[in-house]
Amino acid sequence: MATLKLPSIAEAEKNPAVKAVYDDIRATRKSDFINNIWRGLAGSPVLLQRIWDQIKAVMATPSAIDPLTKEMIYIAVSTANGCSYCVHSHTAAARAKGMTDEQHTELMAIISLAGQTNHLVTAMQIPLDPEFEVKS
Amino acid sequence: MATLKLPSIAEAEKNPAVKAVYDDIRATRKSDFINNIWRGLAGSPVLLQRIWDQIKAVMATPSAIDPLTKEMIYIAVSTANGCSYCVHSHTAAARAKGMTDEQHTELMAIISLAGQTNHLVTAMQIPLDPEFEVKS
Amino acid sequence: MATLKLPSIAEAEKNPAVKAVYDDIRATRKSDFINNIWRGLAGSPVLLQRIWDQIKAVMATPSAIDPLTKEMIYIAVSTANGCSYCVHSHTAAARAKGMTDEQHTELMAIISLAGQTNHLVTAMQIPLDPEFEVKS
Amino acid sequence: MATLKLPSIAEAEKNPAVKAVYDDIRATRKSDFINNIWRGLAGSPVLLQRIWDQIKAVMATPSAIDPLTKEMIYIAVSTANGCSYCVHSHTAAARAKGMTDEQHTELMAIISLAGQTNHLVTAMQIPLDPEFEVKS
Amino acid sequence: MATLKLPSIAEAEKNPAVKAVYDDIRATRKSDFINNIWRGLAGSPVLLQRIWDQIKAVMATPSAIDPLTKEMIYIAVSTANGCSYCVHSHTAAARAKGMTDEQHTELMAIISLAGQTNHLVTAMQIPLDPEFEVKS
Amino acid sequence: MATLKLPSIAEAEKNPAVKAVYDDIRATRKSDFINNIWRGLAGSPVLLQRIWDQIKAVMATPSAIDPLTKEMIYIAVSTANGCSYCVHSHTAAARAKGMTDEQHTELMAIISLAGQTNHLVTAMQIPLDPEFEVKS
Repeated sequence: MATLKLPSIAEAEKNPAVKAVYDDIRATRKSDFINNIWRGLAGSPVLLQRIWDQIKAVMATPSAIDPLTKEMIYIAVSTANGCSYCVHSHTAAARAKGMTDEQHTELMAIISLAGQTNHLVTAMQIPLDPEFEVKS
Repeated sequence: MATLKLPSIAEAEKNPAVKAVYDDIRATRKSDFINNIWRGLAGSPVLLQRIWDQIKAVMATPSAIDPLTKEMIYIAVSTANGCSYCVHSHTAAARAKGMTDEQHTELMAIISLAGQTNHLVTAMQIPLDPEFEVKS
Repeated sequence: MATLKLPSIAEAEKNPAVKAVYDDIRATRKSDFINNIWRGLAGSPVLLQRIWDQIKAVMATPSAIDPLTKEMIYIAVSTANGCSYCVHSHTAAARAKGMTDEQHTELMAIISLAGQTNHLVTAMQIPLDPEFEVKS
Repeated sequence: MATLKLPSIAEAEKNPAVKAVYDDIRATRKSDFINNIWRGLAGSPVLLQRIWDQIKAVMATPSAIDPLTKEMIYIAVSTANGCSYCVHSHTAAARAKGMTDEQHTELMAIISLAGQTNHLVTAMQIPLDPEFEVKS
Repeated sequence: MATLKLPSIAEAEKNPAVKAVYDDIRATRKSDFINNIWRGLAGSPVLLQRIWDQIKAVMATPSAIDPLTKEMIYIAVSTANGCSYCVHSHTAAARAKGMTDEQHTELMAIISLAGQTNHLVTAMQIPLDPEFEVKS
Repeated sequence: MATLKLPSIAEAEKNPAVKAVYDDIRATRKSDFINNIWRGLAGSPVLLQRIWDQIKAVMATPSAIDPLTKEMIYIAVSTANGCSYCVHSHTAAARAKGMTDEQHTELMAIISLAGQTNHLVTAMQIPLDPEFEVKS
């Protein structure tokens, strides 16, 4: 159902540049599972590398925001953008990183409340309070 | 610039039902500041109450997700929905709850990376991996 | 602040094809006011005519949905799409067609509730009930 | 395919708080049918109650906007937000409330025309006419 | 799965007004294939005609932007709007007009990079540089 | 009005890592002008470098899609995402790369028509034609 052919993993890995990225995904995630987005990018090793490098740097490297929070933020953006695949894959990732059912429920409450007030503010065209402005 | 008249706080508080909500906002937030969205809702005490009750329950009550993370999720949704006022007000709220410049930068990196892969997945129409399906 | 020059009405009407559309807008709306979107389209009489013909046919011709309801639907779409100009112009049009403050408040309640459940359904990825399917 | 387990209605109703809401849905709608979104919310009686209370207050209580118009507004928002489930469920609801094929066709014409002019206005970045400003 | 019945082509063409549009689609595209959107519009010959007239004028008439570029722009909008059907149909159309795999890969790189910077700019609420303003 | 302080160019360039990127922007674009998005990213040289590297690779390197077409695709995505700053900056870039008024008008016609049919298809929930499926 994709708009381009998704090669099998074996077929994709015949290209050494693709195999190198897939191997790094496996090593970083400590899992043999390569999900479909990476098959979709197999035809373009340059774009594959660029996307993976960013995912690795932003999502898989210890930093000032903890790994589970990062996944919940990712789910939030993906929901608002209506990306079904992304919502599914990052919800699975959040669960793998320890998201409890209670946290998932709260996440849905926050996301949907934001959806509500976003629409409300836009419908009313509320002007910015000077208190929120950041002076440069 | 709003699509309806925004009364001044003093004018709005002539309605006791509005004043009661504003007083609860002040007490909950430990601040005298009432921002513009609440002025926009002054004409409808029922809707005002409904929105505030939810904000209070979801965002201002201790729970399984910490207050700063909640604000970062709110910013994520508001950004994807293009709600300028919401991005501003919740960034201010996140800062008030301790968000550092480093965390803000990371938040922008995560949100924008999600925007990138959301578009990529949608352009390629990547099919769902069976591994991500939740069995009912 | 537009991405193209907006000629004054007088300047735009030097083109007879533009003047003919503007005159039809005035006659249909029984008003001399030509708002900015029509100035933006003055450089392309073909596109100007195409857009106006549709607005006239869909929004200004008696049909199975009453004029005020049409404007409220237009506001709903424009809000969800985050089009500030469109929210403003169609709210003004709805008021001109009789929208009361009470109806405006309800409209905001409906739009924002839809925003909330839209996000909730997408975050949960709720599957379609067979009962909602239309058989072909 | 949901991101969380959807319990059967019978399983969900073992929780009295869930059963109470479901019973109110049935009584309000005069129908035994409980659609999937309510199964998705069964794990969180608080969120379930909050969402249903709003749907009941906004959509199922006589007010200044008639029930069919409310559903058409809901469809409009859901379409612009790309929520497939929501478009389906509210189109079914609109039909149940009397929407004719002619009205459905008109609704699609309005929604899609709004989509067109929303994009046009955003591409041109049309500035707001002072005539549309509401003075506070 | 549509929200309205999709008649078969044969059934739809019993209406001469529908048949006339379908025949023009076939002649313009030099193909017998009528895709599903046109079946969906069969119940409203007026809307069917209006949509086809625009597709023909904008997409199928020689002009200042070449046919393949037009399709790539269409894919870009459809991706950002999350319209799965539209992404599929216009990707097929782009391929039929000569889009190579390399161009498709680049298109995905551009669309997803735009998605990234769009989110980044909105999260930061970058103010417009005076240099980008068009003077009227 | 940004959500973070935008340093002046001079202030930003005190950081050698930032200056190196700004110098590369100037050299690549053969212009001294550094627009506001790059000031917004000055606080995070890593993210600044990551975004610029991609813009340079995707938008400023000769490839299978010509430079003007790339900018028009960028405008299309930015319009659908409602990013006002992005629409302005990439329209300016497109003009600098030779976009004529006629092409700009056509671009608006294509973008807005896509917006129309995207909404129409989503409102009707048109199922995918098997002919559009890509076999893997």
